[in-house]
Amino acid sequence: MTTSLPWQNLQQRLLEINDLQSAAALLHWDQATYMPPGGAAARGRQLATLQRLAHDRLTDPALGDLLERTWDWPQGSDEAALVRLARRHYQRARRLPNAFIGELVSHQAHTYAAWAQARAEDDFALVQPYLEKTLRLSRDLASFFPEAEHPLDALIEEEDPGYSCRDLKALFSELRQHLVPLLAEITATPPPDDACLTQYFPAAEQLAFSRRLVARLGYDLERGRQDQTLHPFMTKFSLGDVRITTRVREDNLGEALFSSIHEMGHALYEQGIAPHLEGTPLAEGTSSGMHESQSRFWENLIGRSLPFWEWCYPQLQAVFPTQLGSVSLEEFYRAVNKVRRSLIRTDADEVSYNLHVMIRFNLELALVEGSLEVKDLPAAWNHYYQTDLGLTPPTDREGILQDVHWYGGQIGGMFQGYTLGNLISAQLYEALQADQPDLGSRVRRGEFAPISTWLRTHVHQHGAKYTPQELLQRATGSPLRVEPFVNYLRRKYEEIYS
Amino acid sequence: MTTSLPWQNLQQRLLEINDLQSAAALLHWDQATYMPPGGAAARGRQLATLQRLAHDRLTDPALGDLLERTWDWPQGSDEAALVRLARRHYQRARRLPNAFIGELVSHQAHTYAAWAQARAEDDFALVQPYLEKTLRLSRDLASFFPEAEHPLDALIEEEDPGYSCRDLKALFSELRQHLVPLLAEITATPPPDDACLTQYFPAAEQLAFSRRLVARLGYDLERGRQDQTLHPFMTKFSLGDVRITTRVREDNLGEALFSSIHEMGHALYEQGIAPHLEGTPLAEGTSSGMHESQSRFWENLIGRSLPFWEWCYPQLQAVFPTQLGSVSLEEFYRAVNKVRRSLIRTDADEVSYNLHVMIRFNLELALVEGSLEVKDLPAAWNHYYQTDLGLTPPTDREGILQDVHWYGGQIGGMFQGYTLGNLISAQLYEALQADQPDLGSRVRRGEFAPISTWLRTHVHQHGAKYTPQELLQRATGSPLRVEPFVNYLRRKYEEIYS
Repeated sequence: MTTSLPWQNLQQRLLEINDLQSAAALLHWDQATYMPPGGAAARGRQLATLQRLAHDRLTDPALGDLLERTWDWPQGSDEAALVRLARRHYQRARRLPNAFIGELVSHQAHTYAAWAQARAEDDFALVQPYLEKTLRLSRDLASFFPEAEHPLDALIEEEDPGYSCRDLKALFSELRQHLVPLLAEITATPPPDDACLTQYFPAAEQLAFSRRLVARLGYDLERGRQDQTLHPFMTKFSLGDVRITTRVREDNLGEALFSSIHEMGHALYEQGIAPHLEGTPLAEGTSSGMHESQSRFWENLIGRSLPFWEWCYPQLQAVFPTQLGSVSLEEFYRAVNKVRRSLIRTDADEVSYNLHVMIRFNLELALVEGSLEVKDLPAAWNHYYQTDLGLTPPTDREGILQDVHWYGGQIGGMFQGYTLGNLISAQLYEALQADQPDLGSRVRRGEFAPISTWLRTHVHQHGAKYTPQELLQRATGSPLRVEPFVNYLRRKYEEIYS
Repeated sequence: MTTSLPWQNLQQRLLEINDLQSAAALLHWDQATYMPPGGAAARGRQLATLQRLAHDRLTDPALGDLLERTWDWPQGSDEAALVRLARRHYQRARRLPNAFIGELVSHQAHTYAAWAQARAEDDFALVQPYLEKTLRLSRDLASFFPEAEHPLDALIEEEDPGYSCRDLKALFSELRQHLVPLLAEITATPPPDDACLTQYFPAAEQLAFSRRLVARLGYDLERGRQDQTLHPFMTKFSLGDVRITTRVREDNLGEALFSSIHEMGHALYEQGIAPHLEGTPLAEGTSSGMHESQSRFWENLIGRSLPFWEWCYPQLQAVFPTQLGSVSLEEFYRAVNKVRRSLIRTDADEVSYNLHVMIRFNLELALVEGSLEVKDLPAAWNHYYQTDLGLTPPTDREGILQDVHWYGGQIGGMFQGYTLGNLISAQLYEALQADQPDLGSRVRRGEFAPISTWLRTHVHQHGAKYTPQELLQRATGSPLRVEPFVNYLRRKYEEIYS
């Protein structure tokens, strides 16, 4: 990019914000991986300081003045996109009073700790007052954007720009009409036996296998690493340092395996961003939904496909001969694709998963609109699970306390990205398959480079240059559609459940 | 402490500086332990940003105004000490122009990388221009304190306040008069056989043993942890998170063992600081020398003593029965106390160690005074090693390139702390023994709590409240003396080398 003084000044300011945010990300990563218990109190304070300093810089009127200048970058250039995105961040941040940010950041540390305790003790009452404050803060946050059609819009816009509450309601309603009968059909059939997955699998072997696997799928371990944590996530400190975390259960082979592939999908997105965007606001994924499309693409479209297991299963059997030696490929493939009505979103199969998301979306809607109070939330949760999935959580730990999202300090905008990601992943897969008709046979031979190259070319390299809608249009030639996902599910599960 | 508004404001400002420095410390720790290679470039930039922001805050005139107020804290109170120390930090920092700090911070990352390469390739020429710049910057740094008697004084004052170049020359000269003949006497005797230490010792067992050992010696693993690195160090992110690192060599049992005990000694100091000092400038060790006294106390005065090995050796034998089963306690004790003229400071025995330090001190003196040029440094190094230790390094890697210190960005003030630490450790030990005449038999029984309690009471809890001179006087009843150290060496090594 050019070297005019104001442009340098702008880049320097954005880089400083980026450095503070990256430092905060490392403090978070350490908190979730290696930090000893005694470090918790000071760590919360240190994170709040870094976040406050980053926010101060992001809302500095001198940055605003630079952004409001007339920049003559050509339409479609990286620089023009950078200015557009930085303006968006600046203008959003300026809406939020400093006192509000201070209260929010301080509340975040407390509500997370309260949730951890409430979850451990299976006692929603312990976190209820914190969640009430979270709801108040989220409604306050929405109120700083009074021009929005719906208060949820401002919260969604932060994660999935360009999607309104109205759009999502329509989209989810359409998707639901396909999923409910499909799930009913499938669960009317006898389920496959997945006992092969819940034998004893030593942690060290699982970790070594998943590490080799993600490296083979394209994850660059010279620019990343994998560590253990309680709640797996991907994080980035620079384009050269994109890390994933995983969780191992010795009584469940699926946990480390699929969470590793999932987080690797996120990491490939970040590792694939064009190096010249490093340190700018463009050097990140363009939305929650687009990010989730990458993790779900690898986890499900590839990682739960028959060609993938035709290639991978003999290797897995070689590592666990006692456990899997007598389990056929067909049995194993059916086991990792077992569909069932279940209570836990993160364990849900591809068919029912989005119903879990819709329950949360509807609850966010009701809470933010004010038609549901936090005290009535566990009952509402259980009611929806009974209605939509035919199950009532026996404990709040398997119900309202299962997901961290709301307890991180925000209600609203936290879940739609998962379903958007599922839809986008299938639409991308359809476009990829049109470009590479021999996709299945490549996967069967363990050739993943053509896939990651396609994704890098059409999605990753651009970072946040394009809106999610623009990016999807460019990559697939059409706006978001539910058909690719629904067709994918129908085709795959009709075969499995014949 | 009180709640007056200006006092709160002062505390808040100091806490923010502390938070930024702690975040930078975590970025450093990660760089030295887990960071993938691809993260290096951005990490250097992120560290420079945090350091610059901390420096901006430390030199903010509004902080100066607060510090210059008349505070009515009673003489001897923590608050009065805090104001005194914070003034000292502020006034030092204000002497350094922003442009100088910017140049220094940027230079630090480059010179370290150049050293790493020069060391790997054993080629001093690769780092020489960087070291020349380092010398210029260090002389510039000294020049900002023109009132000092000697330019080295300003550099020493930062690490070991209260010791001047003149003091140290006198002290080192006195010590040297004892060490040179003692080393000559000892090395005239046939050396013990230490081949038992250089067998094959698997890394995992070494790490597990050293971890159990440091926990038993008093290191609180709920407020700390141990990880592997290339150059062991201790670091702190809060009083509840004080970490150590170690290096394992499978062909040398001493490496992980003694570096673990050494770093643990540093860590006990930080873990022992009174909790109410958390987040203030008082929550750190009072000087390099006092810090090093703690690491050397545990590593040598305890960790290389006969009573310690009477307790510890059977446990070590149990872990390595093949390697040590037929090695007697006496042989092992003599092996870990083998005295020899050697090339590497960090591997040196207690008797010759300080001669290594004095060589570096004299070279710093000559460089900063301008009587030695960087291009002549390798020759000067080799000359001193021949004169003082009777050896000439066959490679620069075993000579001028061995220590990181100068290549971290400063020449001057970097080494005196090691010898001060050795002297202080023996003086503290003498005072401890006067208080606890049964010290040896306690150690022989593995009772270390009375020792760490004594150190916590007399040294650790105070943090940086007292100057090193005040603290030593309070703990031992006298100013720094060389006799305790010399007497300790004579007594111990005359027995070993009879």
